[in-house]
Amino acid sequence: MKKIVLIRHGQSVWNLENRFTGWTDVDLSEKGVEEARQAGRILKKNGYIFDIAFTSVLTRAIQTLGIILHEMNLLWIPVYKSWMLNERHYGALQGLNKAETAAKYGEKQVHLWRRSASVRPPALDKNDERYGASDMRYKSLKEGEFPLTENLEDTEKRVVKYWQEAIVPAIKDDKRVIISAHGNSIRALVKYLDNISPDRISSLNIPTGIPLVYELDDDLEPIRHYYLENGDNKASKTTDGD
Amino acid sequence: MKKIVLIRHGQSVWNLENRFTGWTDVDLSEKGVEEARQAGRILKKNGYIFDIAFTSVLTRAIQTLGIILHEMNLLWIPVYKSWMLNERHYGALQGLNKAETAAKYGEKQVHLWRRSASVRPPALDKNDERYGASDMRYKSLKEGEFPLTENLEDTEKRVVKYWQEAIVPAIKDDKRVIISAHGNSIRALVKYLDNISPDRISSLNIPTGIPLVYELDDDLEPIRHYYLENGDNKASKTTDGD
Repeated sequence: MKKIVLIRHGQSVWNLENRFTGWTDVDLSEKGVEEARQAGRILKKNGYIFDIAFTSVLTRAIQTLGIILHEMNLLWIPVYKSWMLNERHYGALQGLNKAETAAKYGEKQVHLWRRSASVRPPALDKNDERYGASDMRYKSLKEGEFPLTENLEDTEKRVVKYWQEAIVPAIKDDKRVIISAHGNSIRALVKYLDNISPDRISSLNIPTGIPLVYELDDDLEPIRHYYLENGDNKASKTTDGD
Repeated sequence: MKKIVLIRHGQSVWNLENRFTGWTDVDLSEKGVEEARQAGRILKKNGYIFDIAFTSVLTRAIQTLGIILHEMNLLWIPVYKSWMLNERHYGALQGLNKAETAAKYGEKQVHLWRRSASVRPPALDKNDERYGASDMRYKSLKEGEFPLTENLEDTEKRVVKYWQEAIVPAIKDDKRVIISAHGNSIRALVKYLDNISPDRISSLNIPTGIPLVYELDDDLEPIRHYYLENGDNKASKTTDGD
């Protein structure tokens, strides 16, 4: 039996400001830092050890991972960072306030943009200052690979590609794996692992900062999954940022 | 012309307690965290960017690097960690108080242990609880490779091996490199790069938390080197921990 741990980064400063974040690179809030510390403590208390870690190229996920590994005295393990684990690209919604957007387009439309598997938010224009293809961290992406918007299925495609190419080989090599990522990149992975239908995925939310353990059989099929919670982190969990 | 940056980690809790540290894995002190932040700010202010980072497997160096990269918005770059960049192994002195050790063995002997290129501190016994070969982070070391004590020349051998095998290829590939390491692993590298004699190296100290820039020609021979200082970090620098 193999065991992997998924963790959604703690609260970010834009979760706090109720803004759509997507690929915008924002820091953890103070609460987010504390959530990450608690996650590290719970993992340590439960005897978890990791040999290798995977994360996105966004600061909030890398920072969460660093805090967790520091708490566990595991800062020295190899950490692989890939844009393929990034949050879902939120298109032209990135940076907008969620309440204002709901007032303008209606709650129903915003819920579709946020939770539907197939609906994409309006695309970013390449001339938009929020378009970040010139950002050094994305220089390995080919022309046309940099997204202008994504639905959950788009996110799932790249997350599953990375899962198969980078993470599965590590698990098969008996490495104990932790993946620090984002609300929607983790939803995408869970959708794939548990074979969840597009209909049912809209009601699935991943809480911030709570380690999500997947037990997998030798073919890496999920046996069961559960959250590692105690009273402390239960109280702080939030599910609504993306 | 190529440019690399070396940084000695900020003050650790054992620097503060005046204890010999070596391979003991201790955290940064609060002052050490602040030194790292200042190093990141100075690098950013001076327009530095890095494509790749190298560090040891000891928390204080990894933590220093993480704080610097976070300040520079570069947490996403690849970070390679190797025991070959670790602090010099301090043998049976690890954990001892420096003043008490000087009182017991004399200032002169302690200075030899600390600054001579060829004198080794007393070796650790394999039964000593401080012997850390079973530590997971060293599992790639072969039997007999795990040191029981080191002089600076021993440290230099492994540091230079890592320099040639891992760092030189990155520099030749035009990657902008930062190396976060320790008082004596940086001294060893500087000794090698500048071809400093064993006699002269004993008076060379590397300050904590001050970026040390080396400009190298196309054959990676040093052209010149200098510290990136401003009033703030000048005031805080310490040189006596190891």
